[in-house]
Amino acid sequence: MPAKGVLDVAELSNLVSESVERLRRDKPLVQCLTNIVVANFTANVLLAAGAVPAMVDNPQESEGFASAADGVLVNTGTPYRETAEAMVVAARGAVTSNTPWVLDPVGVGMPWRTQVALDALHVGAPAVIRANASEVLTLAGADASARGPEAGDTVEDALTSAVQLVRDHNCVVSISGPVDHILDADRHVTVSSGHEWMTRVTGVGCSLGALTAAFAGVQNDHLIAAASATAMLCVAAERAVERSAGPGAFAQALIDELFLVSPDEVGERGGFRDVTA
Amino acid sequence: MPAKGVLDVAELSNLVSESVERLRRDKPLVQCLTNIVVANFTANVLLAAGAVPAMVDNPQESEGFASAADGVLVNTGTPYRETAEAMVVAARGAVTSNTPWVLDPVGVGMPWRTQVALDALHVGAPAVIRANASEVLTLAGADASARGPEAGDTVEDALTSAVQLVRDHNCVVSISGPVDHILDADRHVTVSSGHEWMTRVTGVGCSLGALTAAFAGVQNDHLIAAASATAMLCVAAERAVERSAGPGAFAQALIDELFLVSPDEVGERGGFRDVTA
Amino acid sequence: MPAKGVLDVAELSNLVSESVERLRRDKPLVQCLTNIVVANFTANVLLAAGAVPAMVDNPQESEGFASAADGVLVNTGTPYRETAEAMVVAARGAVTSNTPWVLDPVGVGMPWRTQVALDALHVGAPAVIRANASEVLTLAGADASARGPEAGDTVEDALTSAVQLVRDHNCVVSISGPVDHILDADRHVTVSSGHEWMTRVTGVGCSLGALTAAFAGVQNDHLIAAASATAMLCVAAERAVERSAGPGAFAQALIDELFLVSPDEVGERGGFRDVTA
Repeated sequence: MPAKGVLDVAELSNLVSESVERLRRDKPLVQCLTNIVVANFTANVLLAAGAVPAMVDNPQESEGFASAADGVLVNTGTPYRETAEAMVVAARGAVTSNTPWVLDPVGVGMPWRTQVALDALHVGAPAVIRANASEVLTLAGADASARGPEAGDTVEDALTSAVQLVRDHNCVVSISGPVDHILDADRHVTVSSGHEWMTRVTGVGCSLGALTAAFAGVQNDHLIAAASATAMLCVAAERAVERSAGPGAFAQALIDELFLVSPDEVGERGGFRDVTA
Repeated sequence: MPAKGVLDVAELSNLVSESVERLRRDKPLVQCLTNIVVANFTANVLLAAGAVPAMVDNPQESEGFASAADGVLVNTGTPYRETAEAMVVAARGAVTSNTPWVLDPVGVGMPWRTQVALDALHVGAPAVIRANASEVLTLAGADASARGPEAGDTVEDALTSAVQLVRDHNCVVSISGPVDHILDADRHVTVSSGHEWMTRVTGVGCSLGALTAAFAGVQNDHLIAAASATAMLCVAAERAVERSAGPGAFAQALIDELFLVSPDEVGERGGFRDVTA
Repeated sequence: MPAKGVLDVAELSNLVSESVERLRRDKPLVQCLTNIVVANFTANVLLAAGAVPAMVDNPQESEGFASAADGVLVNTGTPYRETAEAMVVAARGAVTSNTPWVLDPVGVGMPWRTQVALDALHVGAPAVIRANASEVLTLAGADASARGPEAGDTVEDALTSAVQLVRDHNCVVSISGPVDHILDADRHVTVSSGHEWMTRVTGVGCSLGALTAAFAGVQNDHLIAAASATAMLCVAAERAVERSAGPGAFAQALIDELFLVSPDEVGERGGFRDVTA
């Protein structure tokens, strides 16, 4: 393990490559409580990467399933009364049984789902909060220019709020943007791979949340897990863009490349930097 | 603006091209209350065309979000108690704040959702009703050969009912078929571009409803907005068919072509006719 | 018709080819009560194959629609209180009006949805139970290694349970695996076509359930209907794999090939065996 606050980038690349190998070998079972828009794409991202998705999102089964799963995703993209209830229940099952869970607080800022996200956080700490800048700001109680799921704030605007979320919940915060920032109490890394088209297809961000839960199921260092998920998706996206005429082709090629990309390439092309203060 | 009842086709083409330019420049935020089958495809259609989708479809958030959105889609494809309630709530938010909303009354004829569509209409006039012939007939109270979402009636059968809907709700009616008919109180145009494969992929009609809401957010003349959405989707479809072996490839290529097609080409290849009586 | 317990494989191939022809000619209307993950893919599989999907899954409309449909699919992948209620209601509508219905008990083993599946079975016999090995074991009351939707048990493990389900419900049981087994009270056939990648894309198994319901709507011999659906999907998959770099391309090519494959090729490449004891 790197010393506190000092990450060696070559070592980080190696840890990421190893995590990708482990994902494909161990095929973690990932319970997803996610939205109706991206459920299909998310399942296909997980399958292509090497994980096993299970979209169990009703209140009757969510707690028990979370105990058995390797990772749990709670995504607030299209909450309904019943699935919102299941999200809190699943978080409880995860916390009780030490299953790592990931919060992807899509669209918080709208009042009702903000409460759902806070209720889930109240149950116990997630392994990772994966969000865009506006959602990080909102979740930390700061002002955000909420304009639906497309964030209007920059990652840099959200860093102070991210530090606060890390402190309040003792978790990793992973902020998506042109450059992704991933931080915990001691470390802060950035991932500069990826492509603008990742925002031109619905569900890429949401599937990053799911992939983060998958990696958290095979990698106990959750900052490495979040970095691995981000790099795997971003490197696959770079490869996919090279052979895509438009966002339709890109969405499909992204699934292919998650299946095809090698662990070494993910580590090497990830574009990691240590920016620990 | 063209004189009442007399549309100049060259002028119409120009207005459509301008609307496509405006869509890409202004990136309207489109709230979609739609069905579980097409939510993903609809979001990708909107993103590829240049709009910003937000699938906010719960009763707690729909009214407020509709006030902030640039356009709202209400699609009755798979209504549930909670989302049906949200549809009426969203229509109210849209009407109250002058956000244009589009009704896509998928599957009306089945009694429960017919009532949901009528309840939404009762709240206040939509900008556009986008439907197939059977749904237009049903909504106007005429007999239709409802056979699920695949209409058994011809567009021509539905024109009298469409005129009645225009009068009752003071809105544009846009009827999809081999030739699309779009009419308001004074004008009646047809759009002959498109391809039969648009019916071999689920969600193409539904995404036309969403795209109509997007254009209504940037084009106050809602007949032009409906014509722009129809032409953009139809011309993109014609381009997509040219490089598709089957409907799977076509679905993906359609997304690409919505991203790639130029405003001029949409105007030029739209296939508009003025058939005002 | 083949004699009891003795199926001629050449005759079976011919019956399958004829069923594919009939599907494309008669375009059966298939009501799907399915999960949020695969609703889009399922609809596109049905459309590409030649059927007409209608995702009517609310309690108010499901019974009446099942009376009018040619086939009904009940899939328990993501049940909620309202859709679970609709599943039982749809089964009742199907049984009352002699519409063949197919049960795809996705994820049974989780207690709540197991009860939903049993409630639906209690209404009356389905034409076909389409499941993986773990689900067959669970539904018959045997122990299964339930690990979400990805079955850990082999088809061979489940054959005794399948025979019991056939006897209890007087229906066809179709078990998916590397080799698919389809059996009724008198006959037992296997289908060896297909490809491992059918498990690397979400919804392929679920769409087989829907396709089985479509064939049951045009082929009264439900063992032949189940064999036709299985062979059509497996042969299309083999063709799709040949031109796919990864699972993203495969998912799209599978839709294309369902549209392109000829009835004769489905019969010839199905890989049928009669293994009647």
